[in-house]
Amino acid sequence: MIDEKLLSKLYPFWDKLTPPHKAEMAANTVLRTYEPGEIVHGGGQECTGVLGVISGRLRTFMLSDEGKEITLFRLIDGDNCMLSASCMIKNISFDVHVSAEVKTEVAIINPAIYDKIAKKSPHAEGFMNDIISMRFSEVMWVIEQLLFMKMDKRLAIFLLEQSALDDSDTITLTHEQIAGHLGTAREVVSRVLKYLANEGYVSVSRKGITILNRKGLSKMAE
Amino acid sequence: MIDEKLLSKLYPFWDKLTPPHKAEMAANTVLRTYEPGEIVHGGGQECTGVLGVISGRLRTFMLSDEGKEITLFRLIDGDNCMLSASCMIKNISFDVHVSAEVKTEVAIINPAIYDKIAKKSPHAEGFMNDIISMRFSEVMWVIEQLLFMKMDKRLAIFLLEQSALDDSDTITLTHEQIAGHLGTAREVVSRVLKYLANEGYVSVSRKGITILNRKGLSKMAE
Repeated sequence: MIDEKLLSKLYPFWDKLTPPHKAEMAANTVLRTYEPGEIVHGGGQECTGVLGVISGRLRTFMLSDEGKEITLFRLIDGDNCMLSASCMIKNISFDVHVSAEVKTEVAIINPAIYDKIAKKSPHAEGFMNDIISMRFSEVMWVIEQLLFMKMDKRLAIFLLEQSALDDSDTITLTHEQIAGHLGTAREVVSRVLKYLANEGYVSVSRKGITILNRKGLSKMAE
Repeated sequence: MIDEKLLSKLYPFWDKLTPPHKAEMAANTVLRTYEPGEIVHGGGQECTGVLGVISGRLRTFMLSDEGKEITLFRLIDGDNCMLSASCMIKNISFDVHVSAEVKTEVAIINPAIYDKIAKKSPHAEGFMNDIISMRFSEVMWVIEQLLFMKMDKRLAIFLLEQSALDDSDTITLTHEQIAGHLGTAREVVSRVLKYLANEGYVSVSRKGITILNRKGLSKMAE
């Protein structure tokens, strides 16, 4: 059985649950560690469960039949994913993929149990709905970028976000990987990176993309 | 005061409300009729309210600072929009625009009153969350089309949908208007329409776009 303290950190409604609900949720949560690149959820119709990130980083993305992809949002310590438990959410008819970006420890709550408790506890249900609205907002931001922003701005935003996530000036992703995040082709990323390098914002080398002029890049991302 | 029968048709949870809640909701709902093209919601930070379509058709769309747009979903008789009342929804940080496509009669519930009643009635709250999840699914479908589908397929899907909405083989929208729905440029729509006309799927004339080969167009939309 999972340590209840861990769940109380991940779920703000924990203290509002009854002792039997706490025990049931803890008994139906498993801990799993994923290696970088490993698939956590997706592909089929399966309903993995509610994911709570204990440490590491998950990426939630859409994948087309032809292998084209785009990142919808990322989850770090303390973040939750409900879309991996869409079987318990009325009207959610799409499926997303979730993979580990680094070594990631995840608490996975059985979706039937979360659903059962949410039906009894307005706090657990409210939390689920708040998370769904938050993801909806994040996805709207993806559409906004896709549709209304030029690729140089989108790449500037992405590099700054990635630098913050990695806590490093150097981003060690390939052009192919960045293209997957942004839902575009590798050639497009390479071309725009060349432009950013020409402008002196970044340097591109074998070890990765290094931000040289953070201020300039931030201005571009505005 | 609005006729309660109208609200009972729009809101499936109506019978579950207490008589005082019913009276309060009815007293805080206004009926408005919008002319084709009229803006129902959007632009600023205002929170118009929960929209229930009595008759006609509304279009919900995103609009960039530069005037670029894309249709997210449409609302017909009996449909509801909660995003026009986003002030009452935690974590919804984006704003959408809503306009009338034809003469449309709408019941607008004061968002503070809906919010207050939803906090007391799990049925009213559940309905709100179900609608939000439904719109989230519709928006994911927009991303999927934007990202993963070629324009000929997207246009075929749009023409078939529009033909169903108008209950007519002829679509009387301009190329510019279609471009606005699909988040693309007029030139792209004209080029793809020319291709569809060359293939014999549609004919394009001054009075509009007429579907000539519905079977072929449907196959293209698959």
